[in-house]
Amino acid sequence: MAAPVIAVVGGGQLARMMAPAAAELGVHLRVLVEAADSSAAQVVVDSPIGVASDDAAIRALVAGADVLTFEHEHVPNDLLHELVAAGTPVRPGPHALVQAQDKIIMRRRLTELGAPCPRWAELSRDEATARTELADFLAASPGGEAVVKTSRGGYDGKGVRVVSAPDDVADWFAGVSAGGPTLLVEEKVPFARELAVLVARRPSGEVRTWPVVESVQRDGVCSEVVAPAPDLTAAEAERARSVAVAIAEGLDVTGVLAVELFEVRVPGAEPVIIVNELAMRPHNSGHWTIDGSVTSQFEQHLRAVLDLPLGETATTAPWTVMANVLGSSLAQMTDALPAVLAQFPDARVNLYGKDVRPGRKLGHVNVSGTDLDDVRRRAMAAAAILRGE
Amino acid sequence: MAAPVIAVVGGGQLARMMAPAAAELGVHLRVLVEAADSSAAQVVVDSPIGVASDDAAIRALVAGADVLTFEHEHVPNDLLHELVAAGTPVRPGPHALVQAQDKIIMRRRLTELGAPCPRWAELSRDEATARTELADFLAASPGGEAVVKTSRGGYDGKGVRVVSAPDDVADWFAGVSAGGPTLLVEEKVPFARELAVLVARRPSGEVRTWPVVESVQRDGVCSEVVAPAPDLTAAEAERARSVAVAIAEGLDVTGVLAVELFEVRVPGAEPVIIVNELAMRPHNSGHWTIDGSVTSQFEQHLRAVLDLPLGETATTAPWTVMANVLGSSLAQMTDALPAVLAQFPDARVNLYGKDVRPGRKLGHVNVSGTDLDDVRRRAMAAAAILRGE
Repeated sequence: MAAPVIAVVGGGQLARMMAPAAAELGVHLRVLVEAADSSAAQVVVDSPIGVASDDAAIRALVAGADVLTFEHEHVPNDLLHELVAAGTPVRPGPHALVQAQDKIIMRRRLTELGAPCPRWAELSRDEATARTELADFLAASPGGEAVVKTSRGGYDGKGVRVVSAPDDVADWFAGVSAGGPTLLVEEKVPFARELAVLVARRPSGEVRTWPVVESVQRDGVCSEVVAPAPDLTAAEAERARSVAVAIAEGLDVTGVLAVELFEVRVPGAEPVIIVNELAMRPHNSGHWTIDGSVTSQFEQHLRAVLDLPLGETATTAPWTVMANVLGSSLAQMTDALPAVLAQFPDARVNLYGKDVRPGRKLGHVNVSGTDLDDVRRRAMAAAAILRGE
Repeated sequence: MAAPVIAVVGGGQLARMMAPAAAELGVHLRVLVEAADSSAAQVVVDSPIGVASDDAAIRALVAGADVLTFEHEHVPNDLLHELVAAGTPVRPGPHALVQAQDKIIMRRRLTELGAPCPRWAELSRDEATARTELADFLAASPGGEAVVKTSRGGYDGKGVRVVSAPDDVADWFAGVSAGGPTLLVEEKVPFARELAVLVARRPSGEVRTWPVVESVQRDGVCSEVVAPAPDLTAAEAERARSVAVAIAEGLDVTGVLAVELFEVRVPGAEPVIIVNELAMRPHNSGHWTIDGSVTSQFEQHLRAVLDLPLGETATTAPWTVMANVLGSSLAQMTDALPAVLAQFPDARVNLYGKDVRPGRKLGHVNVSGTDLDDVRRRAMAAAAILRGE
């Protein structure tokens, strides 16, 4: 029997960061990349070029592979069902993946499962009806504001808009009329902060979670992650992990699942947590695990999709802070290495091999230690050097 | 300016384990491998095929590279001098590397530097003279025993023999007469145990050492490494680290240097340390750093040869034990993953992608924790599973 072969759709940094884990476990990674110089293609030997929407490319990718998995959710579900029927393990399976692809399907299912959701409603495809539904929703919303989302295709703040009148999404109504994905509206949750829970689950049922983290967003994109989330009671942490496990099990997710949560503070009572988004793959909120946990989310994902026993998820330091590098004024990211490594000898710098573009996720820095303020300050300062500041 | 390119001679597990570090730093690794399925070739995209003794292959390897480095010392030194003269950084340089290639040159230089060496003598190329020299050395040796070594080409216990009479190395004398490498004889040090110190040094002079480790050998090959070495006084640790730093500086080593030491116990006094061997590259005694230190020896080697600031070398756990997997009864190493990962969820398993052969280094396991006995027992048991026991 040869070493297992894991086929991955998507050649960005998430697939790239699977490569070290695959090398250590001695498993073979095959990644469908968009271009020969894609982030993952630089570090994965077996990286055929193709796009996720091309059935033939996906079929070629899985030939001889033990399992198909993903670094993003933008994969045609019909083909995945077909591959499953033909005997190729697809993990997470298309029945689970659709919940990460379509926010209306996700909200419906989470509501069925009893997971804590914001108040929400699907908007009709017919524009006049949808405008009335949205106006009614807004009228019942504190402050007259709500969040409208496209059911499909959004990420990193795209496809999400805070609105106070139906006209605020007039362009999206036009998109729906033109046959685009329908919209949903959600309560604008008055959250105190955002948390995230990573869960890994293997087909045979084993589930492991990492400690709950705090995710700090700027302009709708994750800027830093603090692990574990500070000032979290044991009860709240347990509740967050239970919700995440219930979702992983209820949706039959295999591999890593990221559950993004809102924390709402309630005077005189325990905070309330509400499920914001799901991602069925390694996620930005889990990059800290590369250096701050016994088993990284990337290794865990590979173990889970191969149905191998999952790894220990304990932290290796009291605090780990991950700071994203979003855009840079440098021409080449490695130009910053002399400065950042000199100033922060214990910073764990991870660069994704991408060309610099404004706002692009170019890398991240993990810093671990015992003093949270110091750890956070140093992670942010290291990331600032990488941004060329 | 493009990302730095590091050219590496040798496609075994040491080059393989540089790949995750290179991916994280965003630097480009180019490895000269012996075959398309070499250990490193499986995980390094840019891995031309060729042998270290082929000048043309080395010249092609360094074309456009920022630096040339090595995972083994078996590289023609003349060519390296030529490359240096032509302006290619070679790290460690040929003037340093020769000390790891030739044990007579090493002993001579270490003796000059005042590093603690066993009593030793070079044996003449003429067989009759050499026999007399060896007989004289043995006559002056406690127990009438000594260690004869070939000056070049030995590794993992090969080229090293304990002798009590010149006839014990009759075959080696024949080899010398036929033009092979000359021999040296060393005192058979009555050591209590073996220690090792890893040092990293960059061209601009910065030096960092990791904590001193204990290296347990079986049949002349490293079987396990305990980090840090138990029951070491602060004074002894400091002395071992000083010796290693003095050697790195005295020999002008750049990159990682492994200094293997004998510890001799002296009743009523501090133990004595004696330098056994040197390796100018990441070394088996440093595999524990992948999971047990802030910066792994592989990342540190890449940083050092690029003259980048060196990383923090503190441990991330009180104890880390590395257990080698030497040979296996399994057909395929990954077949052991279900069992080993189930029994030891916190074991850090590293498989080298090699075909199984008796005694071959196929992988290793790192286990970290607070209870040394427990950590050691679990590392050994995990390695035993990987050996198919």
